Amino acid sequence: MFITLEGPEGCGKSSQMPLLVEFLRQQGYDVLATREPGGTPISEQIREVLGRLDNTAMHSRTEILLFQASRAQLVEQVIRPQLAKGGMVVCDRYADSTLAYQGFGRQQDMVALRALVDFATGGLKPDLTLLLDIDVELGLRRRRKGGEWNRLDALDLAFYERVRQGYHCLAQEEPGRWMIIDASRPFKQVQADLRQAVAGRLS
Amino acid sequence: MFITLEGPEGCGKSSQMPLLVEFLRQQGYDVLATREPGGTPISEQIREVLGRLDNTAMHSRTEILLFQASRAQLVEQVIRPQLAKGGMVVCDRYADSTLAYQGFGRQQDMVALRALVDFATGGLKPDLTLLLDIDVELGLRRRRKGGEWNRLDALDLAFYERVRQGYHCLAQEEPGRWMIIDASRPFKQVQADLRQAVAGRLS
Repeated sequence: MFITLEGPEGCGKSSQMPLLVEFLRQQGYDVLATREPGGTPISEQIREVLGRLDNTAMHSRTEILLFQASRAQLVEQVIRPQLAKGGMVVCDRYADSTLAYQGFGRQQDMVALRALVDFATGGLKPDLTLLLDIDVELGLRRRRKGGEWNRLDALDLAFYERVRQGYHCLAQEEPGRWMIIDASRPFKQVQADLRQAVAGRLS
Repeated sequence: MFITLEGPEGCGKSSQMPLLVEFLRQQGYDVLATREPGGTPISEQIREVLGRLDNTAMHSRTEILLFQASRAQLVEQVIRPQLAKGGMVVCDRYADSTLAYQGFGRQQDMVALRALVDFATGGLKPDLTLLLDIDVELGLRRRRKGGEWNRLDALDLAFYERVRQGYHCLAQEEPGRWMIIDASRPFKQVQADLRQAVAGRLS
Protein backbone atom coordinates (compact mmCIF):
# COMPACT_ATOMS: atom_id res chain seq x y z
CA MET A 1 0.00 0.00 0.00
CA PHE A 2 1.30 3.37 -1.10
CA ILE A 3 0.05 6.34 0.96
CA THR A 4 0.85 9.99 0.26
CA LEU A 5 0.30 13.08 2.39
CA GLU A 6 -0.53 16.29 0.60
CA GLY A 7 -1.51 19.78 1.64
CA PRO A 8 -0.61 23.45 1.49
CA GLU A 9 1.99 25.23 3.63
CA GLY A 10 1.50 24.93 7.37
CA CYS A 11 -1.02 22.11 7.16
CA GLY A 12 1.04 20.05 9.61
CA LYS A 13 1.83 17.17 7.24
CA SER A 14 5.44 16.82 8.26
CA SER A 15 4.67 16.88 12.02
CA GLN A 16 1.79 14.44 11.70
CA MET A 17 3.56 11.95 9.49
CA PRO A 18 6.05 10.44 12.02
CA LEU A 19 3.21 9.71 14.45
CA LEU A 20 1.12 8.11 11.73
CA VAL A 21 4.08 5.98 10.64
CA GLU A 22 4.76 4.96 14.24
CA PHE A 23 1.11 3.95 14.64
CA LEU A 24 1.23 1.84 11.49
CA ARG A 25 4.44 0.14 12.59
CA GLN A 26 2.83 -0.70 15.92
CA GLN A 27 0.07 -2.39 13.93
CA GLY A 28 2.75 -4.63 12.44
CA TYR A 29 3.15 -3.04 9.01
CA ASP A 30 6.56 -2.78 7.34
CA VAL A 31 6.44 0.97 6.69
CA LEU A 32 8.96 2.97 4.73
CA ALA A 33 8.61 6.71 5.40
CA THR A 34 10.03 9.14 2.87
CA ARG A 35 9.61 12.65 1.50
CA GLU A 36 9.68 14.68 -1.66
CA PRO A 37 11.82 16.18 -2.96
CA GLY A 38 14.44 13.88 -1.51
CA GLY A 39 14.50 10.37 -0.10
CA THR A 40 17.58 9.07 -1.96
CA PRO A 41 21.15 10.45 -2.09
CA ILE A 42 20.61 11.65 -5.67
CA SER A 43 17.20 13.12 -4.84
CA GLU A 44 18.70 14.94 -1.86
CA GLN A 45 21.34 16.46 -4.14
CA ILE A 46 18.50 17.68 -6.35
CA ARG A 47 16.60 18.96 -3.31
CA GLU A 48 19.68 21.02 -2.43
CA VAL A 49 19.68 22.66 -5.88
CA LEU A 50 15.95 23.39 -5.51
CA GLY A 51 16.36 24.88 -2.04
CA ARG A 52 19.44 27.08 -2.52
CA LEU A 53 18.53 30.66 -1.67
CA ASP A 54 20.91 32.06 -4.30
CA ASN A 55 19.19 30.15 -7.11
CA THR A 56 16.77 33.04 -7.58
CA ALA A 57 17.13 32.87 -11.37
CA MET A 58 15.55 29.41 -11.48
CA HIS A 59 12.95 29.23 -14.24
CA SER A 60 9.63 27.55 -13.46
CA ARG A 61 10.22 24.83 -16.06
CA THR A 62 13.63 24.08 -14.57
CA GLU A 63 12.04 23.73 -11.15
CA ILE A 64 9.32 21.43 -12.45
CA LEU A 65 11.87 19.20 -14.17
CA LEU A 66 14.07 19.02 -11.07
CA PHE A 67 11.08 17.92 -8.99
CA GLN A 68 10.36 15.20 -11.56
CA ALA A 69 14.00 14.06 -11.58
CA SER A 70 14.01 13.74 -7.80
CA ARG A 71 10.71 11.87 -8.00
CA ALA A 72 11.85 9.45 -10.71
CA GLN A 73 14.82 8.45 -8.59
CA LEU A 74 12.74 8.03 -5.43
CA VAL A 75 10.15 5.90 -7.23
CA GLU A 76 12.70 3.54 -8.79
CA GLN A 77 15.21 3.29 -5.96
CA VAL A 78 12.90 3.32 -2.93
CA ILE A 79 9.15 3.19 -3.51
CA ARG A 80 8.85 0.42 -6.10
CA PRO A 81 11.27 -1.97 -4.33
CA GLN A 82 9.44 -1.49 -1.01
CA LEU A 83 6.03 -2.11 -2.61
CA ALA A 84 7.42 -5.09 -4.54
CA LYS A 85 8.39 -6.85 -1.30
CA GLY A 86 4.90 -6.29 0.08
CA GLY A 87 5.78 -3.32 2.28
CA MET A 88 3.97 -0.07 2.85
CA VAL A 89 5.21 3.37 1.76
CA VAL A 90 4.17 6.66 3.33
CA CYS A 91 5.43 9.67 1.39
CA ASP A 92 5.35 13.35 2.37
CA ARG A 93 4.29 14.91 -0.96
CA TYR A 94 4.21 13.17 -4.34
CA ALA A 95 3.02 13.82 -7.90
CA ASP A 96 -0.11 15.66 -6.77
CA SER A 97 2.13 18.40 -5.35
CA THR A 98 3.39 19.13 -8.86
CA LEU A 99 -0.14 19.33 -10.22
CA ALA A 100 -1.36 21.50 -7.31
CA TYR A 101 1.65 23.84 -7.05
CA GLN A 102 2.95 24.11 -10.60
CA GLY A 103 -0.31 23.36 -12.40
CA PHE A 104 -2.98 25.14 -10.38
CA GLY A 105 -0.67 27.45 -8.42
CA ARG A 106 1.68 28.61 -11.16
CA GLN A 107 -0.87 27.95 -13.88
CA GLN A 108 1.42 25.86 -16.05
CA ASP A 109 -0.08 23.69 -18.77
CA MET A 110 -1.76 20.74 -17.01
CA VAL A 111 -1.55 18.41 -20.00
CA ALA A 112 2.23 18.83 -20.18
CA LEU A 113 2.52 18.46 -16.40
CA ARG A 114 0.54 15.24 -16.35
CA ALA A 115 2.75 13.84 -19.10
CA LEU A 116 5.87 14.80 -17.12
CA VAL A 117 4.53 13.30 -13.93
CA ASP A 118 3.62 10.09 -15.77
CA PHE A 119 7.15 9.89 -17.17
CA ALA A 120 8.76 10.55 -13.78
CA THR A 121 6.64 8.03 -11.88
CA GLY A 122 6.42 5.44 -14.63
CA GLY A 123 2.67 5.66 -13.96
CA LEU A 124 2.86 4.70 -10.27
CA LYS A 125 -0.08 6.21 -8.36
CA PRO A 126 -0.75 6.19 -4.61
CA ASP A 127 -3.45 3.90 -3.28
CA LEU A 128 -4.49 6.52 -0.73
CA THR A 129 -3.80 10.25 -0.61
CA LEU A 130 -4.49 12.14 2.60
CA LEU A 131 -5.12 15.83 2.00
CA LEU A 132 -4.51 17.94 5.09
CA ASP A 133 -6.77 20.82 4.20
CA ILE A 134 -6.40 24.19 5.92
CA ASP A 135 -7.33 27.83 5.43
CA VAL A 136 -4.45 29.46 3.53
CA GLU A 137 -3.85 32.35 5.93
CA LEU A 138 -4.02 30.10 8.98
CA GLY A 139 -1.55 27.70 7.35
CA LEU A 140 0.91 30.44 6.47
CA ARG A 141 0.74 31.92 9.99
CA ARG A 142 1.52 28.49 11.43
CA ARG A 143 4.35 28.03 8.98
CA ARG A 144 6.00 31.37 9.84
CA LYS A 145 6.10 30.43 13.54
CA GLY A 146 7.93 27.26 12.56
CA GLY A 147 10.78 29.48 11.43
CA GLU A 148 11.72 27.59 8.28
CA TRP A 149 11.87 29.78 5.21
CA ASN A 150 13.08 29.12 1.71
CA ARG A 151 12.84 30.50 -1.81
CA LEU A 152 9.64 28.59 -2.48
CA ASP A 153 7.88 30.48 0.31
CA ALA A 154 8.45 33.88 -1.24
CA LEU A 155 5.19 33.76 -3.16
CA ASP A 156 1.88 35.45 -2.70
CA LEU A 157 -1.33 34.55 -1.01
CA ALA A 158 -3.31 34.22 -4.23
CA PHE A 159 -0.88 31.51 -5.30
CA TYR A 160 -1.56 29.51 -2.16
CA GLU A 161 -5.29 29.93 -2.64
CA ARG A 162 -4.96 28.44 -6.12
CA VAL A 163 -2.92 25.56 -4.70
CA ARG A 164 -5.60 24.79 -2.14
CA GLN A 165 -8.34 24.93 -4.78
CA GLY A 166 -6.17 22.73 -6.98
CA TYR A 167 -5.96 20.05 -4.33
CA HIS A 168 -9.75 20.06 -4.03
CA CYS A 169 -10.11 19.68 -7.81
CA LEU A 170 -7.68 16.76 -7.85
CA ALA A 171 -9.57 15.12 -4.99
CA GLN A 172 -12.85 15.52 -6.86
CA GLU A 173 -11.36 13.86 -9.93
CA GLU A 174 -10.43 10.71 -8.01
CA PRO A 175 -12.61 10.56 -4.91
CA GLY A 176 -11.72 6.91 -4.37
CA ARG A 177 -8.07 7.76 -3.82
CA TRP A 178 -8.34 10.93 -1.75
CA MET A 179 -9.41 11.56 1.86
CA ILE A 180 -9.79 15.17 2.94
CA ILE A 181 -8.80 15.83 6.55
CA ASP A 182 -9.65 19.13 8.28
CA ALA A 183 -6.17 20.20 9.41
CA SER A 184 -7.36 23.34 11.21
CA ARG A 185 -8.48 21.19 14.15
CA PRO A 186 -6.22 20.45 17.16
CA PHE A 187 -3.14 18.37 16.39
CA LYS A 188 -4.34 15.24 18.23
CA GLN A 189 -7.69 15.23 16.48
CA VAL A 190 -6.04 15.53 13.08
CA GLN A 191 -3.79 12.59 13.98
CA ALA A 192 -6.83 10.56 15.03
CA ASP A 193 -8.52 11.38 11.69
CA LEU A 194 -5.43 10.29 9.76
CA ARG A 195 -5.21 6.99 11.62
CA GLN A 196 -8.91 6.35 11.10
CA ALA A 197 -8.62 7.11 7.38
CA VAL A 198 -5.73 4.70 6.90
CA ALA A 199 -7.23 2.00 9.13
CA GLY A 200 -10.48 2.27 7.20
CA ARG A 201 -8.67 1.70 3.95
CA LEU A 202 -6.61 -1.19 5.32
CA SER A 203 -9.57 -3.12 6.69
CA MET B 1 21.01 32.56 -35.36
CA PHE B 2 21.16 29.55 -33.08
CA ILE B 3 23.80 26.95 -33.98
CA THR B 4 24.33 23.63 -32.21
CA LEU B 5 27.18 21.12 -32.44
CA GLU B 6 26.31 17.48 -32.10
CA GLY B 7 28.21 14.24 -32.38
CA PRO B 8 29.26 11.06 -30.60
CA GLU B 9 32.16 10.70 -28.17
CA GLY B 10 35.53 11.78 -29.49
CA CYS B 11 34.16 13.59 -32.54
CA GLY B 12 36.17 16.69 -31.61
CA LYS B 13 33.19 19.00 -31.05
CA SER B 14 34.54 20.62 -27.92
CA SER B 15 38.00 21.27 -29.44
CA GLN B 16 36.58 22.61 -32.69
CA MET B 17 34.01 24.89 -31.13
CA PRO B 18 36.30 27.63 -29.70
CA LEU B 19 37.98 28.09 -33.09
CA LEU B 20 34.65 28.28 -34.86
CA VAL B 21 33.39 30.83 -32.34
CA GLU B 22 36.60 32.86 -32.72
CA PHE B 23 36.16 32.84 -36.49
CA LEU B 24 32.58 34.07 -36.22
CA ARG B 25 33.55 36.84 -33.81
CA GLN B 26 36.23 37.98 -36.26
CA GLN B 27 33.45 38.23 -38.83
CA GLY B 28 31.77 40.72 -36.52
CA TYR B 29 29.06 38.51 -35.03
CA ASP B 30 28.04 38.84 -31.37
CA VAL B 31 28.52 35.17 -30.45
CA LEU B 32 27.61 33.57 -27.15
CA ALA B 33 29.30 30.18 -26.74
CA THR B 34 27.83 27.70 -24.28
CA ARG B 35 27.51 24.01 -23.54
CA GLU B 36 25.14 21.36 -22.32
CA PRO B 37 24.64 20.26 -19.65
CA GLY B 38 25.69 23.52 -18.01
CA GLY B 39 26.02 27.12 -19.11
CA THR B 40 24.30 28.76 -16.11
CA PRO B 41 25.09 28.49 -12.38
CA ILE B 42 21.98 26.35 -11.83
CA SER B 43 22.72 24.20 -14.88
CA GLU B 44 26.28 23.68 -13.65
CA GLN B 45 24.93 22.48 -10.30
CA ILE B 46 22.80 19.99 -12.23
CA ARG B 47 25.80 19.00 -14.37
CA GLU B 48 27.64 18.20 -11.14
CA VAL B 49 24.87 15.84 -10.00
CA LEU B 50 24.92 14.15 -13.44
CA GLY B 51 28.69 13.75 -13.44
CA ARG B 52 29.30 12.49 -9.90
CA LEU B 53 31.02 9.14 -10.05
CA ASP B 54 29.27 7.89 -6.91
CA ASN B 55 25.81 8.47 -8.40
CA THR B 56 25.88 4.97 -9.88
CA ALA B 57 22.28 4.30 -8.76
CA MET B 58 20.95 7.02 -11.07
CA HIS B 59 17.92 5.77 -13.00
CA SER B 60 17.72 6.54 -16.71
CA ARG B 61 14.54 8.60 -16.27
CA THR B 62 16.21 10.64 -13.53
CA GLU B 63 19.12 11.33 -15.85
CA ILE B 64 16.85 12.37 -18.71
CA LEU B 65 14.91 14.74 -16.46
CA LEU B 66 18.11 16.30 -15.09
CA PHE B 67 19.34 16.96 -18.62
CA GLN B 68 16.01 18.64 -19.42
CA ALA B 69 16.17 20.75 -16.24
CA SER B 70 19.66 21.96 -17.12
CA ARG B 71 18.45 22.71 -20.65
CA ALA B 72 15.33 24.60 -19.57
CA GLN B 73 17.46 26.91 -17.45
CA LEU B 74 20.04 27.46 -20.21
CA VAL B 75 17.35 28.24 -22.78
CA GLU B 76 15.54 30.78 -20.60
CA GLN B 77 18.48 32.42 -18.89
CA VAL B 78 21.04 32.49 -21.72
CA ILE B 79 19.92 31.38 -25.17
CA ARG B 80 16.61 33.23 -25.58
CA PRO B 81 17.92 36.57 -24.22
CA GLN B 82 20.93 36.43 -26.55
CA LEU B 83 18.77 35.62 -29.58
CA ALA B 84 16.27 38.31 -28.57
CA LYS B 85 18.93 40.99 -28.76
CA GLY B 86 19.93 39.83 -32.23
CA GLY B 87 23.00 37.88 -31.14
CA MET B 88 24.23 34.47 -32.20
CA VAL B 89 24.41 31.38 -29.98
CA VAL B 90 26.72 28.42 -30.51
CA CYS B 91 25.95 25.52 -28.17
CA ASP B 92 27.95 22.34 -27.59
CA ARG B 93 25.11 19.76 -27.51
CA TYR B 94 21.39 20.51 -27.28
CA ALA B 95 18.05 18.70 -27.49
CA ASP B 96 19.22 16.35 -30.25
CA SER B 97 21.68 14.82 -27.77
CA THR B 98 18.75 13.66 -25.65
CA LEU B 99 17.03 12.11 -28.67
CA ALA B 100 20.25 10.46 -29.91
CA TYR B 101 21.62 9.24 -26.56
CA GLN B 102 18.51 8.50 -24.52
CA GLY B 103 16.13 7.80 -27.39
CA PHE B 104 18.19 5.86 -29.92
CA GLY B 105 21.07 4.90 -27.58
CA ARG B 106 19.13 3.84 -24.50
CA GLN B 107 16.00 3.02 -26.51
CA GLN B 108 13.65 5.09 -24.36
CA ASP B 109 10.24 6.00 -25.74
CA MET B 110 10.81 8.68 -28.40
CA VAL B 111 7.31 10.15 -28.13
CA ALA B 112 7.79 10.82 -24.41
CA LEU B 113 11.30 12.17 -25.02
CA ARG B 114 10.14 14.58 -27.69
CA ALA B 115 7.43 15.86 -25.35
CA LEU B 116 10.00 16.34 -22.58
CA VAL B 117 12.40 18.13 -24.89
CA ASP B 118 9.59 20.39 -26.12
CA PHE B 119 8.70 21.26 -22.54
CA ALA B 120 12.32 21.94 -21.59
CA THR B 121 13.09 24.12 -24.60
CA GLY B 122 9.69 25.78 -24.84
CA GLY B 123 9.86 24.67 -28.48
CA LEU B 124 13.11 26.49 -29.31
CA LYS B 125 14.95 24.72 -32.15
CA PRO B 126 18.40 25.47 -33.59
CA ASP B 127 18.60 27.15 -36.99
CA LEU B 128 21.62 25.04 -37.88
CA THR B 129 22.94 21.82 -36.35
CA LEU B 130 26.44 20.67 -37.24
CA LEU B 131 26.86 16.92 -36.83
CA LEU B 132 30.50 15.91 -36.40
CA ASP B 133 30.20 12.38 -37.66
CA ILE B 134 32.86 9.79 -36.86
CA ASP B 135 33.34 6.03 -36.75
CA VAL B 136 32.44 4.89 -33.23
CA GLU B 137 35.66 3.00 -32.48
CA LEU B 138 37.85 5.78 -33.84
CA GLY B 139 35.92 8.32 -31.73
CA LEU B 140 36.24 6.28 -28.55
CA ARG B 141 39.98 5.75 -29.10
CA ARG B 142 40.43 9.51 -29.48
CA ARG B 143 38.37 10.14 -26.40
CA ARG B 144 40.40 7.79 -24.22
CA LYS B 145 43.61 9.61 -25.12
CA GLY B 146 41.97 12.83 -23.96
CA GLY B 147 41.95 11.38 -20.46
CA GLU B 148 38.52 12.59 -19.38
CA TRP B 149 36.32 9.85 -18.01
CA ASN B 150 32.99 9.89 -16.29
CA ARG B 151 30.08 7.64 -15.43
CA LEU B 152 28.41 8.28 -18.78
CA ASP B 153 31.39 6.74 -20.59
CA ALA B 154 31.00 3.39 -18.90
CA LEU B 155 28.72 2.03 -21.60
CA ASP B 156 29.19 -0.36 -24.44
CA LEU B 157 30.07 -0.02 -28.08
CA ALA B 158 26.65 -1.09 -29.35
CA PHE B 159 25.19 1.84 -27.46
CA TYR B 160 27.47 4.28 -29.26
CA GLU B 161 26.61 2.70 -32.59
CA ARG B 162 22.93 3.31 -31.90
CA VAL B 163 23.71 6.91 -30.97
CA ARG B 164 25.53 7.49 -34.24
CA GLN B 165 22.71 5.91 -36.24
CA GLY B 166 20.27 8.03 -34.26
CA TYR B 167 22.02 11.22 -35.26
CA HIS B 168 21.77 10.18 -38.89
CA CYS B 169 18.04 9.50 -38.53
CA LEU B 170 17.48 12.90 -36.93
CA ALA B 171 19.44 14.58 -39.71
CA GLN B 172 17.34 12.79 -42.31
CA GLU B 173 14.15 14.00 -40.66
CA GLU B 174 15.18 17.65 -40.95
CA PRO B 175 17.76 17.92 -43.72
CA GLY B 176 17.31 21.70 -43.85
CA ARG B 177 18.59 22.11 -40.32
CA TRP B 178 21.44 19.60 -40.26
CA MET B 179 24.88 19.61 -41.89
CA ILE B 180 26.90 16.41 -41.59
CA ILE B 181 30.67 16.98 -41.28
CA ASP B 182 33.15 14.12 -41.66
CA ALA B 183 35.02 14.42 -38.36
CA SER B 184 37.48 11.61 -39.13
CA ARG B 185 39.47 14.01 -41.34
CA PRO B 186 42.41 16.10 -40.02
CA PHE B 187 41.51 18.72 -37.44
CA LYS B 188 42.12 21.73 -39.71
CA GLN B 189 40.01 20.32 -42.51
CA VAL B 190 37.13 19.68 -40.14
CA GLN B 191 37.42 23.27 -38.90
CA ALA B 192 37.37 24.53 -42.50
CA ASP B 193 34.22 22.46 -43.19
CA LEU B 194 32.53 23.87 -40.11
CA ARG B 195 33.33 27.46 -41.11
CA GLN B 196 32.13 26.85 -44.63
CA ALA B 197 28.88 25.31 -43.40
CA VAL B 198 28.11 28.25 -41.12
CA ALA B 199 29.22 30.88 -43.66
CA GLY B 200 27.02 29.23 -46.28
CA ARG B 201 24.03 29.45 -43.97
CA LEU B 202 24.74 33.05 -43.01
CA SER B 203 25.06 34.33 -46.58
